[in-house]
Amino acid sequence: MGVVDVRQPLAGHEDQGQGLRSGVWRRDVLQEVAPDLPVVPGALTDYRQQASFDWKQLRVALEDPEILRVKMNLWRKLEADPVFAHPRVTPPMEEQKRRVAVQLRRFLDLNIIPQEVHNWSYKDKTRFMMAINAATSSWNKNLSVKFGLGVSLFTNALLSLGTDRHLSFYDAVWDNRFLFALGMTEVGHGSNTKQVRTTATYDPETQTFIINTPDFEAAKCWAGNLGKTCTHIMLFAQLITANDTCHGLHAFLVPIRDPETLTPYPGIKVGDIGEKAGLNGIDNGFAMFDNYRIPRENLLNRTGDVTPDGEYESCFQNPEQILGAALENLLAGRVAISQESTHDLCAAVTISVRYAAVRKQGGPRNAKEELSIIEYPLHQWRLFPYVAASCVFKVFIGDFTDQYLDLVEQSYKGAEMKDLTSVAAEVHAIVSAMKPLITWTCASALQESREACGGHGYLKASQLGTMRADHDATVTYEGDNNVLLQQTSNWIVRNWPYAKQGNTSAILDASPLGTLHCLINAAEKLKEQFTGTSIDDVLNPNFVKSSYEWLVCWLTQSLDNQLQKLKSSGLDRFTARGEVHAFYAKPLALVFGESNALSYFWEKIKTPGLSSEIKNIMERLYVLYGLWGIQRNLALFYRGGFASGPKMADLVQEACQAVCSSLKPEIVSVIDAIAHPDSVIKSILGRSDGKIYDHLYDAYMSQQGNMGRPAWWHEVSAKPQSKL
Amino acid sequence: MGVVDVRQPLAGHEDQGQGLRSGVWRRDVLQEVAPDLPVVPGALTDYRQQASFDWKQLRVALEDPEILRVKMNLWRKLEADPVFAHPRVTPPMEEQKRRVAVQLRRFLDLNIIPQEVHNWSYKDKTRFMMAINAATSSWNKNLSVKFGLGVSLFTNALLSLGTDRHLSFYDAVWDNRFLFALGMTEVGHGSNTKQVRTTATYDPETQTFIINTPDFEAAKCWAGNLGKTCTHIMLFAQLITANDTCHGLHAFLVPIRDPETLTPYPGIKVGDIGEKAGLNGIDNGFAMFDNYRIPRENLLNRTGDVTPDGEYESCFQNPEQILGAALENLLAGRVAISQESTHDLCAAVTISVRYAAVRKQGGPRNAKEELSIIEYPLHQWRLFPYVAASCVFKVFIGDFTDQYLDLVEQSYKGAEMKDLTSVAAEVHAIVSAMKPLITWTCASALQESREACGGHGYLKASQLGTMRADHDATVTYEGDNNVLLQQTSNWIVRNWPYAKQGNTSAILDASPLGTLHCLINAAEKLKEQFTGTSIDDVLNPNFVKSSYEWLVCWLTQSLDNQLQKLKSSGLDRFTARGEVHAFYAKPLALVFGESNALSYFWEKIKTPGLSSEIKNIMERLYVLYGLWGIQRNLALFYRGGFASGPKMADLVQEACQAVCSSLKPEIVSVIDAIAHPDSVIKSILGRSDGKIYDHLYDAYMSQQGNMGRPAWWHEVSAKPQSKL
Repeated sequence: MGVVDVRQPLAGHEDQGQGLRSGVWRRDVLQEVAPDLPVVPGALTDYRQQASFDWKQLRVALEDPEILRVKMNLWRKLEADPVFAHPRVTPPMEEQKRRVAVQLRRFLDLNIIPQEVHNWSYKDKTRFMMAINAATSSWNKNLSVKFGLGVSLFTNALLSLGTDRHLSFYDAVWDNRFLFALGMTEVGHGSNTKQVRTTATYDPETQTFIINTPDFEAAKCWAGNLGKTCTHIMLFAQLITANDTCHGLHAFLVPIRDPETLTPYPGIKVGDIGEKAGLNGIDNGFAMFDNYRIPRENLLNRTGDVTPDGEYESCFQNPEQILGAALENLLAGRVAISQESTHDLCAAVTISVRYAAVRKQGGPRNAKEELSIIEYPLHQWRLFPYVAASCVFKVFIGDFTDQYLDLVEQSYKGAEMKDLTSVAAEVHAIVSAMKPLITWTCASALQESREACGGHGYLKASQLGTMRADHDATVTYEGDNNVLLQQTSNWIVRNWPYAKQGNTSAILDASPLGTLHCLINAAEKLKEQFTGTSIDDVLNPNFVKSSYEWLVCWLTQSLDNQLQKLKSSGLDRFTARGEVHAFYAKPLALVFGESNALSYFWEKIKTPGLSSEIKNIMERLYVLYGLWGIQRNLALFYRGGFASGPKMADLVQEACQAVCSSLKPEIVSVIDAIAHPDSVIKSILGRSDGKIYDHLYDAYMSQQGNMGRPAWWHEVSAKPQSKL
Repeated sequence: MGVVDVRQPLAGHEDQGQGLRSGVWRRDVLQEVAPDLPVVPGALTDYRQQASFDWKQLRVALEDPEILRVKMNLWRKLEADPVFAHPRVTPPMEEQKRRVAVQLRRFLDLNIIPQEVHNWSYKDKTRFMMAINAATSSWNKNLSVKFGLGVSLFTNALLSLGTDRHLSFYDAVWDNRFLFALGMTEVGHGSNTKQVRTTATYDPETQTFIINTPDFEAAKCWAGNLGKTCTHIMLFAQLITANDTCHGLHAFLVPIRDPETLTPYPGIKVGDIGEKAGLNGIDNGFAMFDNYRIPRENLLNRTGDVTPDGEYESCFQNPEQILGAALENLLAGRVAISQESTHDLCAAVTISVRYAAVRKQGGPRNAKEELSIIEYPLHQWRLFPYVAASCVFKVFIGDFTDQYLDLVEQSYKGAEMKDLTSVAAEVHAIVSAMKPLITWTCASALQESREACGGHGYLKASQLGTMRADHDATVTYEGDNNVLLQQTSNWIVRNWPYAKQGNTSAILDASPLGTLHCLINAAEKLKEQFTGTSIDDVLNPNFVKSSYEWLVCWLTQSLDNQLQKLKSSGLDRFTARGEVHAFYAKPLALVFGESNALSYFWEKIKTPGLSSEIKNIMERLYVLYGLWGIQRNLALFYRGGFASGPKMADLVQEACQAVCSSLKPEIVSVIDAIAHPDSVIKSILGRSDGKIYDHLYDAYMSQQGNMGRPAWWHEVSAKPQSKL
């Protein structure tokens, strides 16, 4: 797997590149991406002293230090600039929007994406922008969404769907003159994009497209930036030429507001969709068009164009490039979301694990001191698997992003990859499993962390409530999770016949990235049975690996059987797929995702040069993440005949508890390895000094006017009465 | 099970009492508690026509019509009064607090709890107040919490812990002159109340108690109303007399603010703890006391008193009464939360199921029209079990509340119940399982509903985000869910030896309410094995009942075995309990809760006079709720030897899908039976007319100034540039 070279913008560090990539990291480099933690007396320091490994080494094993450096660097810039400061109290809705809009302007002015980045290779540029995006998202998800939709995702889409005649838009966006919104979703249609009903009808007389919204259900909606601030929308509409001939969905650049005055143009009904459950710094909007004309050239014409006199011409001169463009458009957003969610997952466990180490409650009768709640096995079982998931996903998403960007870059270059179609399908299947898996894991980690921090976790200052509300959108946008999973399971089951036939080379062809290798020798694997007799037979990576392989094979086989059965009973394909979704397709796609994440993590553990301490801790995290999933899916192992009798369930459960217990002295240092800086976590419960009560005290005391009576006291005080 | 008589405040309805309690309901009565629904062309009407039963009959079968009437009546009052109107946009934090404080005043002025209620029997009064509380909670959870903590829970606690000398406080609170906060939790201690460190030291010279907060970790915190509005706190503190003799935790009435000016008294540092993840209309506060003096009489002296010259006297003259008081104090809040959460659960599925019926997306190739998303089996499996849970919990909490209040009333009366101690323990165990089970089920229903409504579900106007944020507190407050579950499992396992010995009469003694009857003949039950061969063997209530009985027995036995093993290996009791919490105790308590809820529901199905249509739909809901749980716990059935081979898992899964499919034409009418009025649901997606796009249009269009440019446009518009 390649490592992206993002050294250019980091002047002065060029000479350290090599050092960063060997197994042993130079001290000054470590200090930059993993600055020393405060050493103050207290529980965190005590636990840190119990760890068997150096957290800084784990940090750079889990994430490419070059990427870490880009992020740390950005965070330092944001921290230093008061425009990006976090308000103590949630401002009114309108003010939230204003703040983020101003922050975006400042973000662009700060030259955070230096000019030269635009000249880098696609992969280097995108890798860099994605690191910036993920880091910005952890600072303020509103800002990263506003920037992503309005600038970076838009310009990417522009490059892949547009042609030279649209380059001025590219410059105008980066120069802060234009701001975009992306207009696919309509009021009546989210997931089913084929049903988009907005039309763009070509009029040869004026050489314009006439945009129309047939009714409210076809109004564009939810587009971020559309509500109040965008100057343009990249509008997806049905392209229609003479005699009502429809050429399907195309993208158009449509002016919405005068960039100088932000006044909407006539012919558009545009506004904000109103308050949401989170992300209220984003002005999500709606728009309805009434015979609204745009120039012919505003059609993004890479895949098809209309001549001045109204002839439609498709331009499939290079299918590989088109494929790459499609890939890029569909997937970049989902990869970015997976990165952001991995960040949020790390932040969630940073807060709850540090709190669990410091917070004391209860203990054995007559004990001198109360126990840290992290000492309770239930508490370990509630939180540690999410810590393991954080590490596993961090490695997966880092290495997979590299692969993914390689692929897009090769397709842009028109590389002669005979298996490009296969890779594209595989990448699509991976992303369609991983975005749901990672976002759902993050959502439950946030909830579990909130609960594990008790009442204090319900304070805004814990940050968990805000994160939950903001993160929640990710399970829906850029492809609803349940819908996406079906795409993965469709792909897997399509390849099942090869597995059944023992056609290994067909599997290798279908899965150039290797994610389907688990289906090789499926028939043999499906005969395997659990033979473990002691906890050691379960507490090891091989058991995890082979169990997951069995599970993927069994679920694929079952899904296939079920589909065949339904089809032969006369059901059409659509209905049959609906019938198997809940109990076969969805579990298969999720298990495939877990298995896949584990594979990437396992590859990473084998990296030459890692110290034995680091390998050891990573192996235990691998085992915990794997056993967590196996435990959740135990019934399937029994159902499929892999297990019988109590043994497997007994041992898996025992092993889960044992690995949690073995991680207890390590976990605070694992958190240090994946934690963002305190200024990014923004939680009084999750700071690296562990002084939760001091920070709580400050939070209570520093609210302005907090200890006086409220301004509205006279509205609720008692009528004059004799005093007590 | 008794039916509470709450007819007094509903003048003019006295004559209908009998009619309400027979199996067939009079039309005019039905019309009052189940008003006709709008008949408009559309999906909801279409589905309603497919139902096999009369939703109004189901409505009154699931909830006592007398209680329903109290609630409907209250909702009509709140709806008519602009003070209780819901703001379109979330107001600033401070304004949220002001609004709720003003609403509370109005609530008391409206005489919603009529004067005569105070003269009713304990049970009648409390049942009425609980109905008011649950209904208020669905209107605005902030208001019900403010009222509950400040008035109703406080006055209940006062009656059980105080004596005649405190009655003036009772009157002052109901008269709107005083407002209370309840002060148990401290910054450093929530769950472990034994560790409360605030002290009240008696000074005979001045005949006062001197309240002190030793340090910030002992500051009272989280108390609702303490932040800005309460005049007093019911403070829990260690009572200390001469020579530093500590007599343990006692409750004191402590003045905080001048009721006329709301200015805090000197000697107290008191303020608001700041913004939270939800419930920001409540002023949760902190307080620290510095040699703060209160009169000796402010000690609530039912269980112990201090003489003027400083002698401590305990007053255990009537242990049964004390027991009742303790029960009341510990449990009333948890029962109330279970009622509120059942309401929220009903509201969640009302929104998501109605939306699923109306929303169309996708469908078979070449189909004329898209499918309602409720037609997709996955969507059914995501939502319908929560609908079943709503019905099951609604019945459970109604009938259990009656039992619980009977018990408390009897204990107040000093009834000679030789098994009062047993009932008290059993009630405590039930509540400690049900509050976690219901609140967690509600939390996941809210999340699943939010996701099932897609992007529109993320709009504030869907109501799901607000409900999730507000509801989230319930899993923590009044006893953390995980901690409570341990109390249930402790109680169950304590009775296991009787089951093992086949000592049926001991079980009957230990479980007067019958919740442990499933342990009778445990040895026989544990030998049972799954013998089903077709889906009909699974799709029936007997299978659900016997499977749950097996599961409770097996988990209890396993928990007991495990505890014995750990104890004999030398672990102390506290540590052993910690070791078994995650994998034995917690699942046992939850499964016990599910089984228990099912039992109450089953009793209800057997009510004489129910029509066969109603029995039939209730039976299917029973089966769905049961199979949902069995499916989730399948691995345990294999582990414990109840099942082997694929058959049970196959059939259970098939049955889950089949029962969902059979409920599809019924589900909209089931929702009508449990839905609150539109004005209470407050969701544009969940209204009874199903016109989601009309309401969405109104929501978009009616925001003031929404379609103009933002006031801050000049801060973010482009510098003058040539226009596009």
